[in-house]
Amino acid sequence: MAVEKTMDKIVALCKSRGFIFPGSDIYGGLANSWDYGPLGVEFKNNVKKAWWKKFVQESPYNVGVDCAILMNKEVWVASGHLGGFSDPLMDCKDCKSRFRADKLVEDHMTESGVEVASADGMSNEQLKAYIEEHNIVCPKCGKMNYTDIRQFNLMFKTFQGVTEDAKNEIYLRPETAQGIFVNFKSVQRSTRKKVPFGIAQIGKSFRNEITPGNFTFRTREFEQMELEFFCKPGTDLEWFDYWRNYCWKFLLNLGVTEENLRLRDHGEEELSFYSNATSDIEYLFPFGWGELWGIADRTDYDLKKHAEHSGQDLSYLDPTTNEKYIPYCIEPSLGADRVALAFLVDAYDEEDLSTEDKKDSRVVMHLHPALAPYKAAILPLSKKLSEKALEVYADLAKKFNIEYDEAGSIGKRYRRQDEIGTPFCITVDFDTENDGAVTVRDRDTMKQERIKIEDLSAYIEKSLEF
Amino acid sequence: MAVEKTMDKIVALCKSRGFIFPGSDIYGGLANSWDYGPLGVEFKNNVKKAWWKKFVQESPYNVGVDCAILMNKEVWVASGHLGGFSDPLMDCKDCKSRFRADKLVEDHMTESGVEVASADGMSNEQLKAYIEEHNIVCPKCGKMNYTDIRQFNLMFKTFQGVTEDAKNEIYLRPETAQGIFVNFKSVQRSTRKKVPFGIAQIGKSFRNEITPGNFTFRTREFEQMELEFFCKPGTDLEWFDYWRNYCWKFLLNLGVTEENLRLRDHGEEELSFYSNATSDIEYLFPFGWGELWGIADRTDYDLKKHAEHSGQDLSYLDPTTNEKYIPYCIEPSLGADRVALAFLVDAYDEEDLSTEDKKDSRVVMHLHPALAPYKAAILPLSKKLSEKALEVYADLAKKFNIEYDEAGSIGKRYRRQDEIGTPFCITVDFDTENDGAVTVRDRDTMKQERIKIEDLSAYIEKSLEF
Repeated sequence: MAVEKTMDKIVALCKSRGFIFPGSDIYGGLANSWDYGPLGVEFKNNVKKAWWKKFVQESPYNVGVDCAILMNKEVWVASGHLGGFSDPLMDCKDCKSRFRADKLVEDHMTESGVEVASADGMSNEQLKAYIEEHNIVCPKCGKMNYTDIRQFNLMFKTFQGVTEDAKNEIYLRPETAQGIFVNFKSVQRSTRKKVPFGIAQIGKSFRNEITPGNFTFRTREFEQMELEFFCKPGTDLEWFDYWRNYCWKFLLNLGVTEENLRLRDHGEEELSFYSNATSDIEYLFPFGWGELWGIADRTDYDLKKHAEHSGQDLSYLDPTTNEKYIPYCIEPSLGADRVALAFLVDAYDEEDLSTEDKKDSRVVMHLHPALAPYKAAILPLSKKLSEKALEVYADLAKKFNIEYDEAGSIGKRYRRQDEIGTPFCITVDFDTENDGAVTVRDRDTMKQERIKIEDLSAYIEKSLEF
Repeated sequence: MAVEKTMDKIVALCKSRGFIFPGSDIYGGLANSWDYGPLGVEFKNNVKKAWWKKFVQESPYNVGVDCAILMNKEVWVASGHLGGFSDPLMDCKDCKSRFRADKLVEDHMTESGVEVASADGMSNEQLKAYIEEHNIVCPKCGKMNYTDIRQFNLMFKTFQGVTEDAKNEIYLRPETAQGIFVNFKSVQRSTRKKVPFGIAQIGKSFRNEITPGNFTFRTREFEQMELEFFCKPGTDLEWFDYWRNYCWKFLLNLGVTEENLRLRDHGEEELSFYSNATSDIEYLFPFGWGELWGIADRTDYDLKKHAEHSGQDLSYLDPTTNEKYIPYCIEPSLGADRVALAFLVDAYDEEDLSTEDKKDSRVVMHLHPALAPYKAAILPLSKKLSEKALEVYADLAKKFNIEYDEAGSIGKRYRRQDEIGTPFCITVDFDTENDGAVTVRDRDTMKQERIKIEDLSAYIEKSLEF
């Protein structure tokens, strides 16, 4: 059955079931900000845990860090964010709407069927010329009466200390990556790691976006999962391939439909001047293809910049060959909120369960058990069985996040769990006292199986592997 | 053996082994900011996981949320933070040093042996009068020549959107609690929870402190673990006791020495006007007693304020009795960085291992295995055994964070693991091929045991229970 997955359906389910609520809702919200509810926090934590497991815990190469969001201003001078991390803004003089000039150009390119609809390398002058040449009028009022383009820095500024003067200015980090570069030497020294090795980080970043939107796809406050992998110059393209494949497999292993994924290599004209190669892994959202993962070979650009600007030696001395060099760096950078949204969208399904006699259907989230907010729901067949059911619950809750539900018919309770992606419904019935077993219903196949209570933990554990 | 635990020793170990680095270090740092290194991020994540396990996963009452750091400004109007969350500041006109007037008074009280050295309820006028009356001179230059006291708001301000005007002003949250109150109704509705129930959250908060310090004890950016537990008015003191005991036990179960903990109930004069009861759990740091956990009965103060200010009905309708009321709220509020520091300090030890023949000693961290960054280290006795050892490593790394070390003598490798709190050192030796077993050395007892490789996982798993 071809189900129409719309963002409206996803957003409504997220709100009603407690995955994601609008931020500051009782006060009318705050732009495009979102709060993760009881199911959402478990789900998003599972996404982060899955990434950490594959990119840190199981990787013999990588270690993690967790750096402060507030950093010394000089970090952003060195990284180029203070000078160059900005959007080209333009107002319509007639209707006072504000636009990103590059987005206007890219939208026009897409509509005209230009293959790579990217304005990435264009200067303000080039953007302006393009807009005039192609007569791109104001999307709001249809006029062609724009202000000049000006650059707007995307970093949130604040003041640390009592006075609001330039010397106290600091910024909320716009990416987690710089915390890794700044700590490269400390990490290498304290872990005695040899190149190649990587440093991974999960944490919040902030960008004062002009046009956030598409639910949690683009928000001003967001969480990143970044890896900076340091290798010997010359081996970088090899490692670039390694990590690009590793990322791709990560998504497939966690159940993302391959047809909804595509790999887009950046062409020569799209590449940053310091990059040897860049690829995006994109996902087909209901609103179109969107970037999930950017994998870039950044050469020695970042460490070199920080070495120059800080005056510190950030080179690496190979203990076996005695060669000294600044490592090259591969950066797979992923948005936790974005990939979480992709998992949700991908898992969402509506199934027709009608028989000849009866119309029936269900909404079901086919989330990988490792990502599901609840691993199982304990359902006593009757309230008389609560005591035994709560015993089973308490025992499993020591290891897993488990739901307990005794309200309504068993069919209704199944549907409630299907909708939030709980892989197993465990029914405690009147036979349980005698045979020490329960009925386990599988979310996807809806098949039922009788399982001994003492085997439940291993049964669930097994399903979590990926 | 009486070991002198100094902050200097702890800070030095944290830096050299990769627990905690100074923030933005290559640029000379940023005030009292800190980055968690490869061991630190694992350790702090374990602290957060332990809290979540006990306060959310295993609790039949509580669910979690994860709210945005940036919230609608009206939240802080309603909560009182915009009007009243400030420190009384005062400058010395002679040497230009800046002080918190309340801290000057409290330090003087402590030195004079006043039992409850708290200036919490004092107005600026009372502080000024106290300072003059007791002749509290400038601690820097010894003069008595202060400016007037003025209030300095502790919230970090920033601007969302293009223009830096009042309508775009927003704040970094100074506590996670308000995100919970604002979502009270959405959470209750989506989970269909009945009072009593609680909402828990872990996340970053920011306070523009004038005098951060004592390593990670007081920082401007910090992580909180807060629970807001909603109950029926009249049952609040009972639940207050319940959670106070629950918190106390949490610390003991994770191995904190009871003699280093104390419970301090706030007296009548120290209580906020809306609070029915407040207790602090304090820990004896090398720099003195410091607050870890504040447990407060906040009555219906917060929900009432938000109901008034937002115009929304935040009351609860009891489905069995049909009573309608605004729940009372118990708030156990804990700093993740603080309690992590307490665990570190408490675990630190220096042991004399000298025998008649030989002087010997070790530094060891007696961290609870659930908190230890690495659960085990795999040590091949010889490099010839690497292959087998890496097999054992890869297998265990699927479930746990595991270290692999083949450099140096086995004795040296033991010491390295002791110092970072690894509970088990697993040696792969020349018998391993034949008997399928390894030698497991216990960090605390230093006893060795022969264990089958296939039993290792369960052996480690067992040690993690608390």
